[in-house]
Amino acid sequence: MSALKLEESRQRIRTELDTVVDFWLKYSHDTVHGGFFTCIGRDGKVYDELKYVWLQGRQVWMYCRLYRTMVRFRKPEILEAAKAGGVFLRRFARVSSSSGQWKCAFCLTRDGKVVKIQRTIFSECFYIMAMDELSRVTGDKDMQLEAEQMMDQLIYWVRVDSSGLGRPKLPGDVLTNSMAIPMMLLCLVQQLTEGQGQAVVQKYRELGSWCVQQILQHIQRDGTAILENVSVDATELPGCQGRLQNPGHALEAGWFLLQYSAEWGDKELQKTAINKFVELPYQYGWDKEHSGLFYFLDVDGYCPTQLEWSMKLWWPHCEALIAFLMAYSQTMKPELLDSFSQVYEYTFSHFPDAKSGEWFGYLTQEGEVALDFKGGPFKGFFHVPRCLYMCERILDDLLANKD
Amino acid sequence: MSALKLEESRQRIRTELDTVVDFWLKYSHDTVHGGFFTCIGRDGKVYDELKYVWLQGRQVWMYCRLYRTMVRFRKPEILEAAKAGGVFLRRFARVSSSSGQWKCAFCLTRDGKVVKIQRTIFSECFYIMAMDELSRVTGDKDMQLEAEQMMDQLIYWVRVDSSGLGRPKLPGDVLTNSMAIPMMLLCLVQQLTEGQGQAVVQKYRELGSWCVQQILQHIQRDGTAILENVSVDATELPGCQGRLQNPGHALEAGWFLLQYSAEWGDKELQKTAINKFVELPYQYGWDKEHSGLFYFLDVDGYCPTQLEWSMKLWWPHCEALIAFLMAYSQTMKPELLDSFSQVYEYTFSHFPDAKSGEWFGYLTQEGEVALDFKGGPFKGFFHVPRCLYMCERILDDLLANKD
Repeated sequence: MSALKLEESRQRIRTELDTVVDFWLKYSHDTVHGGFFTCIGRDGKVYDELKYVWLQGRQVWMYCRLYRTMVRFRKPEILEAAKAGGVFLRRFARVSSSSGQWKCAFCLTRDGKVVKIQRTIFSECFYIMAMDELSRVTGDKDMQLEAEQMMDQLIYWVRVDSSGLGRPKLPGDVLTNSMAIPMMLLCLVQQLTEGQGQAVVQKYRELGSWCVQQILQHIQRDGTAILENVSVDATELPGCQGRLQNPGHALEAGWFLLQYSAEWGDKELQKTAINKFVELPYQYGWDKEHSGLFYFLDVDGYCPTQLEWSMKLWWPHCEALIAFLMAYSQTMKPELLDSFSQVYEYTFSHFPDAKSGEWFGYLTQEGEVALDFKGGPFKGFFHVPRCLYMCERILDDLLANKD
Repeated sequence: MSALKLEESRQRIRTELDTVVDFWLKYSHDTVHGGFFTCIGRDGKVYDELKYVWLQGRQVWMYCRLYRTMVRFRKPEILEAAKAGGVFLRRFARVSSSSGQWKCAFCLTRDGKVVKIQRTIFSECFYIMAMDELSRVTGDKDMQLEAEQMMDQLIYWVRVDSSGLGRPKLPGDVLTNSMAIPMMLLCLVQQLTEGQGQAVVQKYRELGSWCVQQILQHIQRDGTAILENVSVDATELPGCQGRLQNPGHALEAGWFLLQYSAEWGDKELQKTAINKFVELPYQYGWDKEHSGLFYFLDVDGYCPTQLEWSMKLWWPHCEALIAFLMAYSQTMKPELLDSFSQVYEYTFSHFPDAKSGEWFGYLTQEGEVALDFKGGPFKGFFHVPRCLYMCERILDDLLANKD
């Protein structure tokens, strides 16, 4: 990929980011109750008013991140929508559990009534991301404190006692190291410490290191596979759960590790991140016949039991773009840029909707649009703009250094 | 469809049932711990040892039903496997909940340790089906009593107080009439009362009638749609949940209602069952482009949010075959036999695996095999053999009356 091609892709990415932001500014704001509609059809029509807390938190975070770090998005309407989303979250998403700890709901009605609470930590994770980033924009110290308090509780659930989550302990339900947990915590450590003083950095230093070790435990089979679930002793689990691979998730972990290795100057970790979490999942996760990344695979080649295993989803491709571009920017190895280029070609020729803007989320194995909405219970204003934002910034740096 | 074609299809169905029974007899028995492996690959290999209670109960039921009612399946190995499955279920599937009520687990390890408990009633439903049918074969009165006791508890959960299921009441989670609940209860009423004296029939009479009324509430939009979820006042619910259609489920409800209408001589109900629960879901659920029944649809034509909405699953086709053949046998209307014939052609040309026997479960919208296993967490020895068994018996009657 030449400098000219890099410049072309930066231009495309920048334009695409503008289009995506415009789409959500135009269609997703609930000006009556605050917060965001996320079930949005191909042409922008809201087809369900439920408010999924993951997506509420992510949209607040993304708006604030764009507002804070990119001059062209420093617009009052973005800030106001983020603030209204923050108010909605603080008012309705936090629910007290029976143990007296704070849980976040998973799903709310349009006006904030709790529909569902998951017995996991992810709603809380996106709540923290939202509050920390929003507080950086507004300077609200109470809000940042609240983010840290929720983080303390998360750490307690993950590392000390998970009973507050409400999941009963069952004799056949063995303790599992699921990659999502240390990944999310590492992401939060990076969020909470970014640009902060040594006190905050030190507070989360051991946790960050623990997350990295937990993620590395997913390298299995003599380094030839990343498995999504392993035992807490870093051994393989039996059955489908143990053999599950999620290439997009491994690639996302890859760039989290690359950020961490850059922050701490850890060259060994950088190498492992690139070899095992970027190149390896791309090798086994890429569909040689129809192109694109599979959603799920079984490391022994059995058919996964997830009905959607062979579908091509938008977000693994977003993660792959960030991972390869970041890996290239840190090493300048041309083969990493070649892989970025391959993923870029597939992604931009399949996911964006030229007619109405934004991206389709779910394609068949052959690359046809299988579900045509732009937002749904799990697709909001997050993976697409985060990918475009990250790639634009990396390309800015790369092209600035080329001059 | 001529008498000759009917005879041909009976022959095919009979052969297919033999093949399917052979497959499960050969590959699914756990001779060490009892019960059944159900995660079975294309060629019979067990790829996961977890035991899903729905499928354990269903396999016990199906084995016993075949053993009890079809001479050629009155084999000791079938009875022994069913008994071992029953022992496994009684020993491991029943777990006491915190409220002191009996809950059934959803998933067990191979040796019976509880992995997961769902906060719904379906494991209990299949437990009851298994115990009632097994007790009919073995003459075990305690077991039949146990089935009735579990049924009493189910009725209490559904009609009086569901708090024993462990699901917290949330302000945004409105009470819903989901078609699965009255369908399952009606199926159990038919199971428990079949061939029993007036005392048992009378015991469940009001419940059966209530189930029928609850099912009929799903006829919506001036009779033009069957909706999967409605409010307890029989009105439409907002959003995706309210607009959801599941054609295979409606067709299954259709033949449950046809059985009920035949039992009670209710001609009006027979007519409603055929028009609204057999013909109507076939009209809106059949893929005009690629043939086959869609899994999910949105009544207003929005894209469903279920990633698998356009896939062609084995079980809706099984239910359609039973529904149309039963409707035809009750009315002798030729258009119902034509529809049976269409579903039959698609089903038998797409689902059976000529190489290794049994049926594939999950096809793409275009009819290609998307997941090639024969058994999984939700596909066991149930829908395929029940369909073949029901159809063979109906065809036996039809052809006997033709002579």
